[in-house]
Amino acid sequence: MSTAPVPTAACALAIRLADAAGAVVRRHYRTPIAIDVKADESPVTAADRGVEAAIRAILTAERPQDGILGEEQGSHGLDKEWVWVIDPIDGTKSFISGRPLFTTLIGLLHHGVPVLGVIDQAITGDRWVGVDGQPTTLNGQPIRTRTCPSLSVATMGATMPFPQPGFARVQAASRYTVWGGDAYAFGLLAAGFLDVMVEASLQPYDWAALVPVITGAGGVITDWQGQPLRLGTDGTVAVAGDPHLHAAVLDLLRAD
Amino acid sequence: MSTAPVPTAACALAIRLADAAGAVVRRHYRTPIAIDVKADESPVTAADRGVEAAIRAILTAERPQDGILGEEQGSHGLDKEWVWVIDPIDGTKSFISGRPLFTTLIGLLHHGVPVLGVIDQAITGDRWVGVDGQPTTLNGQPIRTRTCPSLSVATMGATMPFPQPGFARVQAASRYTVWGGDAYAFGLLAAGFLDVMVEASLQPYDWAALVPVITGAGGVITDWQGQPLRLGTDGTVAVAGDPHLHAAVLDLLRAD
Repeated sequence: MSTAPVPTAACALAIRLADAAGAVVRRHYRTPIAIDVKADESPVTAADRGVEAAIRAILTAERPQDGILGEEQGSHGLDKEWVWVIDPIDGTKSFISGRPLFTTLIGLLHHGVPVLGVIDQAITGDRWVGVDGQPTTLNGQPIRTRTCPSLSVATMGATMPFPQPGFARVQAASRYTVWGGDAYAFGLLAAGFLDVMVEASLQPYDWAALVPVITGAGGVITDWQGQPLRLGTDGTVAVAGDPHLHAAVLDLLRAD
Repeated sequence: MSTAPVPTAACALAIRLADAAGAVVRRHYRTPIAIDVKADESPVTAADRGVEAAIRAILTAERPQDGILGEEQGSHGLDKEWVWVIDPIDGTKSFISGRPLFTTLIGLLHHGVPVLGVIDQAITGDRWVGVDGQPTTLNGQPIRTRTCPSLSVATMGATMPFPQPGFARVQAASRYTVWGGDAYAFGLLAAGFLDVMVEASLQPYDWAALVPVITGAGGVITDWQGQPLRLGTDGTVAVAGDPHLHAAVLDLLRAD
């Protein structure tokens, strides 16, 4: 992990970015909006672009020396000491379906290490904040992952049924699966409501904010090889709220 | 459909039942709660039982002449003119995961025909009301399903990946799939945010409230054979917001 504490000013700025994002989100939620289809077939709307623009305007004005990596509007300065990683609307399919499970993700890398993360759901008002070296909070209250002795009693969160055999093995070994959810489900895991999450193809803007949230709540988040998530990772993600369960999940993911 | 208008008193009572349910739900949401496992392996909690008991107490006091069919506490009087159909918490896996997509479902059958339905999400405050012969409302505002010319541009809602080949065909033919959601997703479809829903094994307490909500918003809801949902149906459910799309969905479901 990072060796220096995260500056208080950076934490306060991340909160202001989330506030600015929420204002845009609430203007567009459940209103008619054109849905464009990106090169990867995923949907995008004026809400995604408007949230990212609002966040970038603040960062450009106040942190011109930092890098930015955003889902919709590209990246610059990825070699800077501090890099802000923005997913304006994670779960765009939920957003366009009027389902309040989408979130805005604000992550901060220090020398490439995720040290700050905000997961913000502007409709329900759920806001997770994770800061390196501090307890993760949900709406200001410290949260902890829950213990889980075995996958046989675990509840797994899964954004979708991924085709990888390893995913199917973890899902079959878990007692329950809660389908759908994207980053919101990672927040629920951090708060002790889910035990396991497995993703097959996350981008840095998907996972950067999640790492401090999960870690600061006592969970473990790595790629399927057990390596920490860094720029250049292969997009696989395995999370367990109970560290003892994480090794069992990795064993199932890597059994091929 | 039923030939007589639904009495205003029945509509008002359904709203009061939903209010009573919401009070119980909010006491238990995201609090530690024991999870019991039913014979069918599905989870159940004191919240499910508490909501159903609160609803039954009101019905027993005010509508002793009516039948009741409830998920957790059995049924009686299914041959009565009026039968109340109660799912205290639809989406219990969402509930125990702290995810505000579960709902309380209150349906009313008149001579076996679903004529009144309430879908209530007590955390977000989303409440759908469908009454035979009237426009469906979401939070008091009339809603309509949206047009959708083809599955190739449709968004499908799916509670889980069902193993039936017909389900996979509809999913593959749809542009997007939004995973998870249970009855909440049917409400989103009624409000014009989703185009198609397919379920493989719904019980009467799962679908009774959905029929008036979907129908009153302009959608079509049947079993996979295109038959209306009645007690004794086989549990398959196919819904389209655009009636023209419904036939295409049935064709794919029945192609085996």
